[in-house]
Amino acid sequence: MARRAALIGVDWGTTSFRAYRIDAEGSVIETREAPAGILSVRDGDFAGVLEREVGAWLAAEPDLPVIASGMITSRQGWLEVPYCPCPAGSAQIAGALMRHPDRPGLHFVPGLSLIGDDGVPDVIRGEETQILGAVGDRPGRHLLVLPGTHSKWALALDGVITWFATFMTGELFGVLRQHSILGRLMQGEADDHAAFERGLGYARTGRGGLLKRLFSARTLGLFDLLPESSIASYLSGLLIGSEIEEALACLEAPDDGAIGVIGASQLAWRYRAALAARGLRVRPAADDAGARGQFLIARAAGLIG
Amino acid sequence: MARRAALIGVDWGTTSFRAYRIDAEGSVIETREAPAGILSVRDGDFAGVLEREVGAWLAAEPDLPVIASGMITSRQGWLEVPYCPCPAGSAQIAGALMRHPDRPGLHFVPGLSLIGDDGVPDVIRGEETQILGAVGDRPGRHLLVLPGTHSKWALALDGVITWFATFMTGELFGVLRQHSILGRLMQGEADDHAAFERGLGYARTGRGGLLKRLFSARTLGLFDLLPESSIASYLSGLLIGSEIEEALACLEAPDDGAIGVIGASQLAWRYRAALAARGLRVRPAADDAGARGQFLIARAAGLIG
Repeated sequence: MARRAALIGVDWGTTSFRAYRIDAEGSVIETREAPAGILSVRDGDFAGVLEREVGAWLAAEPDLPVIASGMITSRQGWLEVPYCPCPAGSAQIAGALMRHPDRPGLHFVPGLSLIGDDGVPDVIRGEETQILGAVGDRPGRHLLVLPGTHSKWALALDGVITWFATFMTGELFGVLRQHSILGRLMQGEADDHAAFERGLGYARTGRGGLLKRLFSARTLGLFDLLPESSIASYLSGLLIGSEIEEALACLEAPDDGAIGVIGASQLAWRYRAALAARGLRVRPAADDAGARGQFLIARAAGLIG
Repeated sequence: MARRAALIGVDWGTTSFRAYRIDAEGSVIETREAPAGILSVRDGDFAGVLEREVGAWLAAEPDLPVIASGMITSRQGWLEVPYCPCPAGSAQIAGALMRHPDRPGLHFVPGLSLIGDDGVPDVIRGEETQILGAVGDRPGRHLLVLPGTHSKWALALDGVITWFATFMTGELFGVLRQHSILGRLMQGEADDHAAFERGLGYARTGRGGLLKRLFSARTLGLFDLLPESSIASYLSGLLIGSEIEEALACLEAPDDGAIGVIGASQLAWRYRAALAARGLRVRPAADDAGARGQFLIARAAGLIG
């Protein structure tokens, strides 16, 4: 721990906990990960989990500010922070940070809300920090996707998040696979790349929308046009491909033509493949984009010494 | 049983059994219903179930032909009958009837298959008979919808089924309600008409497609814009409305502008309300359209004395 830190960033989600020691330039010195998502914390002892995971870092450098983002700021988390309305960049989010009442060095990052033209709200919580980190100081207009159970797409203009949207793709895949007639036909994992691409292709070119297209996962199997071991891959491609079409229909093309994909999960790799198959350029963003975003927010809030 | 019958029609589905005594003009004299769908039949004793349900009718008129349609002709049924390719009317279906090897008076109706322009197959089994019965002898072009777990839309031209498509709407509603984060927010039944219409409206006018729109069922609740007791109704409207948009996008307008809705289930009433809210005219078709279809097929096959 020779190198001095300027900030501890905590990305605390529903099922995962990740902490970063970050230096005064925003580089990550050290990372800790634990299966200590908010759902696993007993009796609301968030302080105990934080102490267990980063207590040694704080003992060595007691004055380090701590900034926490993700579902830890939801009603089920440590301290509920109201959504910050969009558009919002580091400055707006820094202004809406919430300090823990008993721990002045601990700051919570708000999620963002957006009311669409159609009056329907959307929300992100945790992703705003990753988006800011992925875009960094690059000016211009950037389109990003954050794959997950609920996939998020976002637009940032000169470091300000101006739009985002949530797609229930991952959850839909899960419930269809586990509980629907399609799932009963599926065998094995979703690791057949050709079947995945076939699903992508049908999402682009087939007639009708998703409710109709879903049934193809059944009939292609029924007619021996797709082996049962490939149906999960096909369905994954069909859903991710449909999401991409829906998202692109929501907006104009991004300035530089490349779409940022945040994360290095297997799911993120699927999105990269799907975007590439669609002829779109992909700009991978590091899994620790969250740490960079925490640094930018902390700096805007004047927390970096 | 004074009035003489000309045919016994059996509509034998996955979870339901319905039999009709039908006269020489195609009118239903008597109906029997039982929760004796093919999934409930033990040890493949379909003959025993048929005897139990319609044995008295056959004892009184032993020479009556019997015609059975629905999932009874699937691999899980009594006798698997290969799909008859579309386009098909009573004549084609009559020509593809399969006689039981040991019971010459018992005939099974094939389902229909269709290969779309995009090479993807679709199938119906049982609905073909209901469609023919609903259209009857009316010439011209007719568009029909058969609500169900897997909703079917069909086009008939002068009594010939020329196109159909399957939409997984009902099953999707079920798995989302029972197993998704949306279901965890829902309270009560889907009986709020205003919320149902709100879902219909969002299906028509919102930006993005279904994967994006689904999330509105969560955020509207989160922002207290929709009570938890109304989310199920809203989701039902959103899904049925999306299905209607998808189906209409698949085809041109029907000749007479009215859409036939088969059945009198609560679900069928929802579809009627949804189509009416969309400004479309609805032509209700009786729940026993199947009996009429069985009569037309039997007559075309020369089974009616």
